[in-house]
Amino acid sequence: MPHLRRRMLGRLMAYYRFLSELTARKRVNTVTSAQIAEAMDIDATQIRKDLSAIGLRGMGRVGFDVCEVCRAIRVALGFDQKYETVLVGTGHLGNALLAYSGFDRYGLHIVAAFDSDNRKIGRKIAGYTVKSTRMLKPFVRRHKIRLAILTTPAEVSQTLTDRLVSAGVEAIWNFAPTQLTVPSSVFLRSEHISKGLSEIAYHLRQ
Amino acid sequence: MPHLRRRMLGRLMAYYRFLSELTARKRVNTVTSAQIAEAMDIDATQIRKDLSAIGLRGMGRVGFDVCEVCRAIRVALGFDQKYETVLVGTGHLGNALLAYSGFDRYGLHIVAAFDSDNRKIGRKIAGYTVKSTRMLKPFVRRHKIRLAILTTPAEVSQTLTDRLVSAGVEAIWNFAPTQLTVPSSVFLRSEHISKGLSEIAYHLRQ
Repeated sequence: MPHLRRRMLGRLMAYYRFLSELTARKRVNTVTSAQIAEAMDIDATQIRKDLSAIGLRGMGRVGFDVCEVCRAIRVALGFDQKYETVLVGTGHLGNALLAYSGFDRYGLHIVAAFDSDNRKIGRKIAGYTVKSTRMLKPFVRRHKIRLAILTTPAEVSQTLTDRLVSAGVEAIWNFAPTQLTVPSSVFLRSEHISKGLSEIAYHLRQ
Repeated sequence: MPHLRRRMLGRLMAYYRFLSELTARKRVNTVTSAQIAEAMDIDATQIRKDLSAIGLRGMGRVGFDVCEVCRAIRVALGFDQKYETVLVGTGHLGNALLAYSGFDRYGLHIVAAFDSDNRKIGRKIAGYTVKSTRMLKPFVRRHKIRLAILTTPAEVSQTLTDRLVSAGVEAIWNFAPTQLTVPSSVFLRSEHISKGLSEIAYHLRQ
């Protein structure tokens, strides 16, 4: 994904989040780029440009139809599709993600959870019966799983990543605090909370 | 924090993570910028520039002393100090963060956990006895807490943020899936997993 595209994705996502929250709070039918601009501290011209890029035109002073904007962003970002997903690593963070109910509206459906710890295998977490990581490869293959969420300890993450890649996943969402290597055909997104942590520590240091 | 500075922080953090992992795996005394460059897919010149900016000079072909680099990054990013922190919201994610043992080495010490749910108050989670959010303000004031981690539902996050700000925190690390408003004197860092989610969905969409 080129850098500009990525930033635009980030902004579209932010508009979507803003509009979802806005409509959850009160009945709103239309919104102007100026209103979004003020709430989000982004230039209104930028907003109109982004929305225009996904085929939206404002209706003069009335602005944009909120439902239409949300629908267009959902289609542009791919939230209208369905991504069957496996989660690997049922530690605290894995459990939190399994219990999180907000993924569905982005098209992401966790269909199974895996762990290598014998004490966890067979136990039920947030409605999922934990499967053995030895079953990971056949499961991913059989169900043509395209996405895997990785919430494992750093030291086993690369091995499990290799297994997922060879089983055919197209994307890995990594929450393990380590750097992973994947072939260029596989999309890797890593969430490193240490990045946020470093900004905070840097800001607070004396 | 200006944009360039922020990107440099991110890179320094990445070097630190890489070197920590490297030394955890095997005994390594020195490292060259070329080695870091190859492992991290960053230009070696950039790496030398970043390390030079925090006062480090390589020793010719031998490269850099690993301990010295780690120590310099720790000081530059403020990991050598101590930040007493409160965590607000003991849901799944809050619990995962309370149980996470990796914060200490960045100087972040969670000293208390808060929740507004009466069923949770008084219960013990990962060694913390959950306190009522009604005690949040006096606690923050009395202990001069500078940082708060927010893992609350979106709809109560702004109210709690206002309370934390008026109690005097200097930084908020927000994990709630919502946009928060803080005075410019308060540093806000938000972790939105929806951003990663949108990149993944965009990549997988057909």
